[in-house]
Amino acid sequence: MMTRDEYIESLRKLDLKVYFMGERIKNPVDHPMIRPSLNSLAMSYKLAEMPEHKELMTAKSHLTGHTINRFCHIHQSAQDLVNKVKMQRLLGQETASCFQRCVGMDAFNAIYSTTYEMDKALGTDYFERFKKWLIMVQDKDLVVDGAMTDPKGDRSKGPSDQADPDMYLHVVEKRADGIVVCGAKAHQTGAVNSHEHLIMPTCSMREADKDYAVCFAIQGDAPGVSMIYGRQSCDTRKMEAGADIDLGNSQFGGHEALVIFDHVFVPNERVFMCQEYQFAGMLVERFAGYHRQSYGGCKVGVGDVLIGAAALAADYNGVPKASHIKDKLIEMIHLNETLYACGIACSAEGKATESGAYLIDLLLANVCKQNVTRLPYEIARLAEDIAGGLMVTMPAEQDLRHPELGPIVRKYLQGATGADTENRMRVLRLIENITLGTAAVGYRTESLHGAGSPQAQRIMISRQGNIAAKKELARKIAKIDTSKDHFEVPAKK
Amino acid sequence: MMTRDEYIESLRKLDLKVYFMGERIKNPVDHPMIRPSLNSLAMSYKLAEMPEHKELMTAKSHLTGHTINRFCHIHQSAQDLVNKVKMQRLLGQETASCFQRCVGMDAFNAIYSTTYEMDKALGTDYFERFKKWLIMVQDKDLVVDGAMTDPKGDRSKGPSDQADPDMYLHVVEKRADGIVVCGAKAHQTGAVNSHEHLIMPTCSMREADKDYAVCFAIQGDAPGVSMIYGRQSCDTRKMEAGADIDLGNSQFGGHEALVIFDHVFVPNERVFMCQEYQFAGMLVERFAGYHRQSYGGCKVGVGDVLIGAAALAADYNGVPKASHIKDKLIEMIHLNETLYACGIACSAEGKATESGAYLIDLLLANVCKQNVTRLPYEIARLAEDIAGGLMVTMPAEQDLRHPELGPIVRKYLQGATGADTENRMRVLRLIENITLGTAAVGYRTESLHGAGSPQAQRIMISRQGNIAAKKELARKIAKIDTSKDHFEVPAKK
Amino acid sequence: MMTRDEYIESLRKLDLKVYFMGERIKNPVDHPMIRPSLNSLAMSYKLAEMPEHKELMTAKSHLTGHTINRFCHIHQSAQDLVNKVKMQRLLGQETASCFQRCVGMDAFNAIYSTTYEMDKALGTDYFERFKKWLIMVQDKDLVVDGAMTDPKGDRSKGPSDQADPDMYLHVVEKRADGIVVCGAKAHQTGAVNSHEHLIMPTCSMREADKDYAVCFAIQGDAPGVSMIYGRQSCDTRKMEAGADIDLGNSQFGGHEALVIFDHVFVPNERVFMCQEYQFAGMLVERFAGYHRQSYGGCKVGVGDVLIGAAALAADYNGVPKASHIKDKLIEMIHLNETLYACGIACSAEGKATESGAYLIDLLLANVCKQNVTRLPYEIARLAEDIAGGLMVTMPAEQDLRHPELGPIVRKYLQGATGADTENRMRVLRLIENITLGTAAVGYRTESLHGAGSPQAQRIMISRQGNIAAKKELARKIAKIDTSKDHFEVPAKK
Amino acid sequence: MMTRDEYIESLRKLDLKVYFMGERIKNPVDHPMIRPSLNSLAMSYKLAEMPEHKELMTAKSHLTGHTINRFCHIHQSAQDLVNKVKMQRLLGQETASCFQRCVGMDAFNAIYSTTYEMDKALGTDYFERFKKWLIMVQDKDLVVDGAMTDPKGDRSKGPSDQADPDMYLHVVEKRADGIVVCGAKAHQTGAVNSHEHLIMPTCSMREADKDYAVCFAIQGDAPGVSMIYGRQSCDTRKMEAGADIDLGNSQFGGHEALVIFDHVFVPNERVFMCQEYQFAGMLVERFAGYHRQSYGGCKVGVGDVLIGAAALAADYNGVPKASHIKDKLIEMIHLNETLYACGIACSAEGKATESGAYLIDLLLANVCKQNVTRLPYEIARLAEDIAGGLMVTMPAEQDLRHPELGPIVRKYLQGATGADTENRMRVLRLIENITLGTAAVGYRTESLHGAGSPQAQRIMISRQGNIAAKKELARKIAKIDTSKDHFEVPAKK
Repeated sequence: MMTRDEYIESLRKLDLKVYFMGERIKNPVDHPMIRPSLNSLAMSYKLAEMPEHKELMTAKSHLTGHTINRFCHIHQSAQDLVNKVKMQRLLGQETASCFQRCVGMDAFNAIYSTTYEMDKALGTDYFERFKKWLIMVQDKDLVVDGAMTDPKGDRSKGPSDQADPDMYLHVVEKRADGIVVCGAKAHQTGAVNSHEHLIMPTCSMREADKDYAVCFAIQGDAPGVSMIYGRQSCDTRKMEAGADIDLGNSQFGGHEALVIFDHVFVPNERVFMCQEYQFAGMLVERFAGYHRQSYGGCKVGVGDVLIGAAALAADYNGVPKASHIKDKLIEMIHLNETLYACGIACSAEGKATESGAYLIDLLLANVCKQNVTRLPYEIARLAEDIAGGLMVTMPAEQDLRHPELGPIVRKYLQGATGADTENRMRVLRLIENITLGTAAVGYRTESLHGAGSPQAQRIMISRQGNIAAKKELARKIAKIDTSKDHFEVPAKK
Repeated sequence: MMTRDEYIESLRKLDLKVYFMGERIKNPVDHPMIRPSLNSLAMSYKLAEMPEHKELMTAKSHLTGHTINRFCHIHQSAQDLVNKVKMQRLLGQETASCFQRCVGMDAFNAIYSTTYEMDKALGTDYFERFKKWLIMVQDKDLVVDGAMTDPKGDRSKGPSDQADPDMYLHVVEKRADGIVVCGAKAHQTGAVNSHEHLIMPTCSMREADKDYAVCFAIQGDAPGVSMIYGRQSCDTRKMEAGADIDLGNSQFGGHEALVIFDHVFVPNERVFMCQEYQFAGMLVERFAGYHRQSYGGCKVGVGDVLIGAAALAADYNGVPKASHIKDKLIEMIHLNETLYACGIACSAEGKATESGAYLIDLLLANVCKQNVTRLPYEIARLAEDIAGGLMVTMPAEQDLRHPELGPIVRKYLQGATGADTENRMRVLRLIENITLGTAAVGYRTESLHGAGSPQAQRIMISRQGNIAAKKELARKIAKIDTSKDHFEVPAKK
Repeated sequence: MMTRDEYIESLRKLDLKVYFMGERIKNPVDHPMIRPSLNSLAMSYKLAEMPEHKELMTAKSHLTGHTINRFCHIHQSAQDLVNKVKMQRLLGQETASCFQRCVGMDAFNAIYSTTYEMDKALGTDYFERFKKWLIMVQDKDLVVDGAMTDPKGDRSKGPSDQADPDMYLHVVEKRADGIVVCGAKAHQTGAVNSHEHLIMPTCSMREADKDYAVCFAIQGDAPGVSMIYGRQSCDTRKMEAGADIDLGNSQFGGHEALVIFDHVFVPNERVFMCQEYQFAGMLVERFAGYHRQSYGGCKVGVGDVLIGAAALAADYNGVPKASHIKDKLIEMIHLNETLYACGIACSAEGKATESGAYLIDLLLANVCKQNVTRLPYEIARLAEDIAGGLMVTMPAEQDLRHPELGPIVRKYLQGATGADTENRMRVLRLIENITLGTAAVGYRTESLHGAGSPQAQRIMISRQGNIAAKKELARKIAKIDTSKDHFEVPAKK
Repeated sequence: MMTRDEYIESLRKLDLKVYFMGERIKNPVDHPMIRPSLNSLAMSYKLAEMPEHKELMTAKSHLTGHTINRFCHIHQSAQDLVNKVKMQRLLGQETASCFQRCVGMDAFNAIYSTTYEMDKALGTDYFERFKKWLIMVQDKDLVVDGAMTDPKGDRSKGPSDQADPDMYLHVVEKRADGIVVCGAKAHQTGAVNSHEHLIMPTCSMREADKDYAVCFAIQGDAPGVSMIYGRQSCDTRKMEAGADIDLGNSQFGGHEALVIFDHVFVPNERVFMCQEYQFAGMLVERFAGYHRQSYGGCKVGVGDVLIGAAALAADYNGVPKASHIKDKLIEMIHLNETLYACGIACSAEGKATESGAYLIDLLLANVCKQNVTRLPYEIARLAEDIAGGLMVTMPAEQDLRHPELGPIVRKYLQGATGADTENRMRVLRLIENITLGTAAVGYRTESLHGAGSPQAQRIMISRQGNIAAKKELARKIAKIDTSKDHFEVPAKK
């Protein structure tokens, strides 16, 4: 396994093409806009170095027997699935942001079991290819960006019906030694901090879409790959000279990028699906399932920090004993632990796939994510309630540091007797960061749309909820005699 | 183990003192008001006879190695805790009501680990006594009413401060061979269908309250024990001649009773705590914890039936394809599975106590129950929405059976083409039963108050939520330097 | 105007055909099942006799100048609309149930302005006919059942497409002196306590449906009219000998009936629409609008009683000072007043129609009702929370009255020091009555489905919400240049 | 009345002391950070110039008979109160932000009636002084910052108990010709765009606090007055060269400042309360009431823009016909109109005070604001749901403008067929602006804390909700005989 520092050095060696605000970023590793997100990812290495976190952060590879970072692991038991969620909560607690390494892990696991079943059904040999590549990833301890979401263009049309064929990433040429692809993947979390991208199709496909049914791995600096770094709320605060307090979280962050593939060549040994459209749906469903589970861990960890920050704000404001404040903190914990319960439950109820890899309970994983699209918003609202209006009306840290303005700010922003004003500002800025600032992108919008927007989960809940069996239960209790009915009921809701 | 029929016969042998609406009920077993609740309980025997439910419904006693009903089992693993929840969901699905046997099971487990730790701390020998009694219960396959809630009188006063000392059940005399107790236990679920009562204290206690720190087992027909059967919404429909459709659920139900103890003698071998007030709190907390877990199973099962009934109602009403109907069914499933996730999570995260018995995760069990105080109400509202107003304006079944009115009712209550009107009425009456009728007592009010009212869970969530650690996480992220603060923060929220 | 007693006597003179539980009820006025609902309606007379309520309860007829009961009034100003809501809140407070007279009032107002516009457009003369009939109603101070909802049969089919033509009430014969109709009206609130029925079509209609576009008035005891009285939760408690405490509300209630029209002849002067299908939609929309406004008054009044009952329950339970109890009462008031605000707002924003009659703001009236489909459920849940589990486990009043059991019940159900146990039981039974019992039909299910189920309001909100104008606002702010767009956006959401 | 341009010019004449990020801002009027907020305020002048908005935007002064801007008006009728809310909704729609002029208007009205009653009770003559000053304000058409909120220091202590006496603004010297004050007012909306500040006490006071019971008017550039401009989410985007698209709303915004009073002299004719602590509470209650009403107008207007933007986003995304999208838009409208209904209702129910000025219904105004602390958060969540993840992962506008990156961005961010990519980005950035960016400060946090945090409204709802009367209603219905009770119930909840 790499150490934290080795990981950072390894990124320097990549020659990434990254653009931001109309300019190419030469050195992403040290760019103040990007560095905090890199720090978050690096935490996945740092914690793995710490003995007290070894159980959660590492695993024994079932492929090599080597000790590997759990982010590179194929889950071998329900306990592995539970440990994954606990690891994610821990990282959320330590970074208070999106640490970006989950998409790769979730892609590994989804591709692993899908290629196994695909090979069995179609006689292909992707599973062995994939294992080989995965062993390399495990041994080198790489960060891999699991990339699924295409730009999609006109939503009312499928991949092959789009006016512009690149709206979904697709194979444009099949050569003897590999394939050439064009297209893009949007909303790529942590793309700039990754060694490799692992591309997956974005939805179930029909035969007409088969060129879009493609799955492969590619190095981040492969020819034809480029990235446009997305803007985030409050992003440029990170570029203000000496910025510290006003960042709320000066060390950690997340990022999203649009990754473009312009005639990128992928050698055969890195191709894990090519035109087998029949298995695109399974791959998507499993990746989405794993990733919906993930949110029951990572967002809970960020929630822990936000609850702690709200409790601290109450202390600095001087109202920690007010009954309504205590009740709001309880409600925040209740909602946050409800998310965790969903994350744990879909893991504990995980079952082995044919490949031996463990898959979460799909119904509960979708229920988990559906709750994540709601409860963090209420937790955030309660945090803003406890923080008070000062959070959005406070002077800048430059005012606090100013020789004449400083004492005035310090005087009038004094809260509880004996409390330090700068500390008060720090905690309020942290709450701002998570509810309105850069981390709000991760804590709110990503909670809504990451791993699929709310409606995607509802469709899965409908499919997995087995309404037919529930009707049968009701018929038995109500003594309904269906022989008296002469009507057709829709088979599926 | 007893069969379902043996269980019913065994109850006939008890000479219970039961009152209802001002009269003594001679034969509770065959009384139309009580029988449905007995049928629910009997289902715990019937399912145990069925090979396909053996895994969930039975367990191997760690005390004797005998195969026993899981309701009599001391949980030996987290999987046992998970299986308990699954068994409860199954029973909820089969009865659509409260099947009453959980309180005993939860009491067994709480007393088991508490007496173990109490003996170790105080040198008493309650654990062995309790094991002996429990083996008898397991081998005879008895139903035991776990009884905790005292009438409490004036809530602003503790047990020993009440004007009437009987407001909390207490020891009035200690004899060489046993103790004499007075008092009552309120809201006793399934008391009339039980062979024995297992009495526990209702709250933490101070030394002054020590006579109230009492735990023991007593036969249902012991001298001095009597019961007043509580009224329920729509209860007397069960006594209407030929009632069937209008009951909604003609076979199953639940019941609650006030159990009175008027100078009841309890022999020493049946006493498991007597004045050890220091351990009353632990016993209450554990029993409440187990019982809060239970609701993540049983109410989910009832929810399954209600969802199925709502889906059927949509079919009979002729609107199963309306997008808002489908969306409401999805929401019902989502909420119901959220409860289940909480039940599973607190179980999967269970840990062994010193006695070896497994205890649920207390935080998550309280989160589970807190959700149960809310989500079933919304599920019920959605069911009423889908059912339509007819549910509460329908003619009686006597009208449907009437030679002249019948055809009119049948004509005008016809729904979807080909659907049978009686079937439509049956499913609407089932929804009425669960949302307004006798089963609403179990599905709604019991969800609110059973195993402790909402505020009781909030207090536990506050205690178990570890806000101090969360604050520390926030301090680290916000770089708060506490050495600059000179103020005291309340230690506990 | 009639006095309360005259009203009751006037009902005795009607020879109604009413069935309940398979039997004809000879004397509905004195039947214990029906009488409470009659008492509620009679309150609209009694309050009109009281000087302190004169302003709200009466109005000056714009047709005759006579002082009339406001329930017979055509609203002449926005203040009249506001006063209507206040009158309804008052009656809700006095009866804690549905007082049934609103449907007639709302029908008068909807038909008044619709016939005016219909005559103008089509050259018919319904308006004068209707005014004449209305003057009779005003001067005799009659109760009129405004009847809209047809059984509807197969919901996927329109009126004229049903297998059975009677699924919607329709004209089966046109004679020189009148029309003959067949069909039924379902969910008729207060039908048995009404002198007359005022029949309206139930939805917009196409030309093919024209025989279903019929509006007329008919006496309750006209040949061919009969009623089947609907069951309600806990209904037969009213028939228990000496029932008082267990009724919760022994004096007042509501009722619903299925009203059947079997070849009923209606003379021409009582016909207000016959085949003018083009105006069915307007009539429905206006009646529904007025009736959705009504819920912002009546349910608020019942809510006031429920809040008061919950506060009393807290007193009797001995916990009125607990902060969480106080907070729940505040939440109940907040939710209840939100409903009232909606009722007032749609009234204050009312505008004159061409006929001079004032019509509520339709958007806000639909918003009002949509809130009524949700908030009373949460208010009820909070009431059940404060009440405690005793509400559904309490012994019957026969137990309290019993010579031996009575003292035991009195002892163990004692709450706050000095509080009377019977009073405690009374207030808990009142809460049961509104949340689970007969009044729950009015407070919960009627809140959901009365005046149209939730989805009906959503359709109206969509139509009235003017999304196109809102888009234009957003375009202006975001500086969107639509000349660059080349796509068609659906005209209407 | 001034025109929009005259207003802007008038501000240039003020010599304000404004600091931001550690520097003094020389020319606030043209500063890119401040200008958008000034544009919002200027809209209150511009709309008053437009004939179609004359009725809402202007009023006839009851003091002079002159036509004045409604923002300077003392409400003379309930219709005036209603028109105020409609004017605020209009301004919200036109600016999609906080337009800052309401605080002054609400202060005028609160002080007007309070000084009238104070003079009557205490024999002072503040009312005449205030009228004179107000006539000047009306005739000059000034913007006045109504300033209430003090920094408050340690919340567990009252004004005169603070370690630092300046934590609440107070009189430090009384001279023959005026008073000298010290302190600060926090969260001052629009302070930099105001001609004058109108200072009010922040809470009820005891005699010991009398030096804090002070109300007066002061010019913005008076000696000793200075302002520190508060940071907002995404604020510095406004200072990026050529910023347009990424601002979301390039023209309008709001601002908040900390206003410091360092030994400021106020001549007697501008002092409207000085040590009359008995009337501080009335002034606060009335100002808060008026201001809580205001939120039922302004936030509804912003909500209209957000709903329109979400509907446009659905169009550009190509999914306007999806049933879940349509349903979410309906829900947004429903919630937004619920707020409006509350704003209208508390206005329509307004009553005249002794001074003749109309006061809103206090209970309903508090209910209005309480809903504003919740519903906009859900509206925002739904907008983010409809917008999709692109809102927070999009490239910057510099990328769109870039010669090489531009076509790539344009290609891959293409949505519905024929839709313009830049337009799509514009509408997504507008949604970002309101939900996460600078306008989120107004739409979210200000909705929570402006005019008092949620708990402040709950206290008022408790006081105004008349629980005692509601208990009496319940007692009557339940036939409770209080003569049998012998216990004391707390008089007030």
